[in-house]
Amino acid sequence: MRDVFLVGVGTTSFGELWEISLRELITEAGLAAVQDAGVAGAQIDAMYVASTSAGRLLGQQQLGALALDEAGLASTNIPATRIEAGDASGAAALRSAALAVAAGAHDVVVAGGVEKMTDVLEDDQTTALVSSADMEWEGFFGATLPSLYAMMARTHADEHGTTREQMARVAVKNHEHGADNPDAAYPFETSIDAVTGSPPVAEPLTMFDCASPVDGAAAVVLADEATAQELGGPRVRVAATAQASDALALHRRDSITTLESTRVAAEEAFGEIDGRPEDVDVAEVHDVVTIAELLSLESLGFYRPGEAATATEKGRTTYGGDVVVNPSGGLKARGHALGATGLAQAAEVALQLRGEAGDRQADGARTGLTQAVAGTGGTSIVHILEAVGGGER
Amino acid sequence: MRDVFLVGVGTTSFGELWEISLRELITEAGLAAVQDAGVAGAQIDAMYVASTSAGRLLGQQQLGALALDEAGLASTNIPATRIEAGDASGAAALRSAALAVAAGAHDVVVAGGVEKMTDVLEDDQTTALVSSADMEWEGFFGATLPSLYAMMARTHADEHGTTREQMARVAVKNHEHGADNPDAAYPFETSIDAVTGSPPVAEPLTMFDCASPVDGAAAVVLADEATAQELGGPRVRVAATAQASDALALHRRDSITTLESTRVAAEEAFGEIDGRPEDVDVAEVHDVVTIAELLSLESLGFYRPGEAATATEKGRTTYGGDVVVNPSGGLKARGHALGATGLAQAAEVALQLRGEAGDRQADGARTGLTQAVAGTGGTSIVHILEAVGGGER
Repeated sequence: MRDVFLVGVGTTSFGELWEISLRELITEAGLAAVQDAGVAGAQIDAMYVASTSAGRLLGQQQLGALALDEAGLASTNIPATRIEAGDASGAAALRSAALAVAAGAHDVVVAGGVEKMTDVLEDDQTTALVSSADMEWEGFFGATLPSLYAMMARTHADEHGTTREQMARVAVKNHEHGADNPDAAYPFETSIDAVTGSPPVAEPLTMFDCASPVDGAAAVVLADEATAQELGGPRVRVAATAQASDALALHRRDSITTLESTRVAAEEAFGEIDGRPEDVDVAEVHDVVTIAELLSLESLGFYRPGEAATATEKGRTTYGGDVVVNPSGGLKARGHALGATGLAQAAEVALQLRGEAGDRQADGARTGLTQAVAGTGGTSIVHILEAVGGGER
Repeated sequence: MRDVFLVGVGTTSFGELWEISLRELITEAGLAAVQDAGVAGAQIDAMYVASTSAGRLLGQQQLGALALDEAGLASTNIPATRIEAGDASGAAALRSAALAVAAGAHDVVVAGGVEKMTDVLEDDQTTALVSSADMEWEGFFGATLPSLYAMMARTHADEHGTTREQMARVAVKNHEHGADNPDAAYPFETSIDAVTGSPPVAEPLTMFDCASPVDGAAAVVLADEATAQELGGPRVRVAATAQASDALALHRRDSITTLESTRVAAEEAFGEIDGRPEDVDVAEVHDVVTIAELLSLESLGFYRPGEAATATEKGRTTYGGDVVVNPSGGLKARGHALGATGLAQAAEVALQLRGEAGDRQADGARTGLTQAVAGTGGTSIVHILEAVGGGER
């Protein structure tokens, strides 16, 4: 299979964007990515579009062809397909695009993701989030996504002594990062007291432990090496793409404090680059609730089970530590625009590897990782991106 | 890219299956396909699952991991992804699976499709069907899928003199075929008078011009050549896979009597096999309404514009004619289980090429084609399957 390069990124602001439609959002992100890459519309060979809930909330299917149409590219007749894997849909679209280029089926592929989550009823938001869990065994009985993660949090606390304050520390850190992200939905700092004192959602999690569903879109352009060279030289390589599944419902898993799908995907991804977590300088992981970031860091192999909380507390997951986790602010501060999230993660990591992340820049970042999770771990997708050329750190 | 072989097929009955859940349907079809192929669960490397409306109608996303879980394969942790392209979702899943095997990313891949359409409100069925059209420009203003096709039918009649009876003849022929399909939802014959005299839906189309949304599932197993050999020798090859897009809304197209996405996909698919429509013995095409089959046959290149109606009338699209079109009964008589349809088409053509289609067998079928359309043509996907080995006709 061929090497795949990430040659352009584009994101919209995330937030309550009531005045911008789904069509406008995906077009804005797509065009930004295409301009960043410097490719012409006629060069694009295929599109993959992620959206988790447009079918349910907006009654619109066939988002692939729709996005192509809105971009003014319907007359190119190129294939455009929607990919859905719950909250991990954006990463699944990125992976489909990467495999298509790796296979030699296409040379230039756009992967975009979009979600409109704020101009619907709150009940619909809750349902959209839990629809990535097991509706028959969990959602039907009233479980929400935060309540499922609350069970995981309590079990983690039982097994490892993880404290309420350690969980809150994840939100505080990600808001510190997000305060430097002009596209974040919640670009401000917060405090442990503010998090633990916010309204309860599902014991022990409070409102500020939970990422908010927001509107937003993100897109990337992938290309083969020859095309990347023509575009001015590759700067970021998609070094690994791995996806793994697990039972959707928590009661069907051996452990609810390991994200087995993440563990398997990470193992495969690090195998592809013959590397290990210590090689990663910057990571965007799935902090859909605070405990999810701790579970993710442990399942990815950054820390042993039970050690991510202490590492977070000691500042090892921020600038100057072991690895900068969620420099964008993560789902927590940037906001969680479901189908767009996986692509926004990739866009952030690509900017970091290009040294263009502004106030959020992690010094000398050469290797980055993204991890997307659907529901409570039914699907996990891990990508490893590497800087190409340029100076050594 | 590697050769890809279709080594197993499985379908459920199509129809009003109120007593069988979505989970049971996809598992039944998937296991049937896996048994037909003779592969073990542990041999499967990836799954692609198609469903158009499960998110909207059942509130369940992440169908990929769900299907894997239901099949008892969650512990394999293999990637499982949902693919959506409106009514063409099943064909899109087949295409994703074929590309994954062709790329060498996977050796054995299951593509499955499922839909539950009958145990929801009729209004939800209508909305689910039109959600593959352009909701903002068409659905929002009250257009239904049959009403959009009615405009295409009237324009086709204006341009080519296509008569009401010629359209009805498509339904009569497909019900003749479907009467021999024990899995069809409507396995009985009908007459021109019965079709034209059925309740009006959208002038000139009546109820019996329109395929009914039904419940059902279908799956196929694809494999690389080495694996196909181990499984007892390849019998069916996926000779071509092509997908093309067009504007979703009719008013944004140059012509509404050519399915441009079908034309482009067919041109590409025939290019891949260096062949032409005359080579095709058996075809499953998208007769979501009667006029759609005529538009499809012309856009695929089987007949020149305006000539498919006469060809149908003269019996050239049935046994003993040019090409047996919709031997399964098509969407009309087998029923349209949206996400399952594209895979049911592939399953029917594979059985024909294996000489195992029973009463529906087209003599000496060696080359088969499937064509799936989303909405009124925003996406079209064309596959060409070829018999491998065995006798010459």
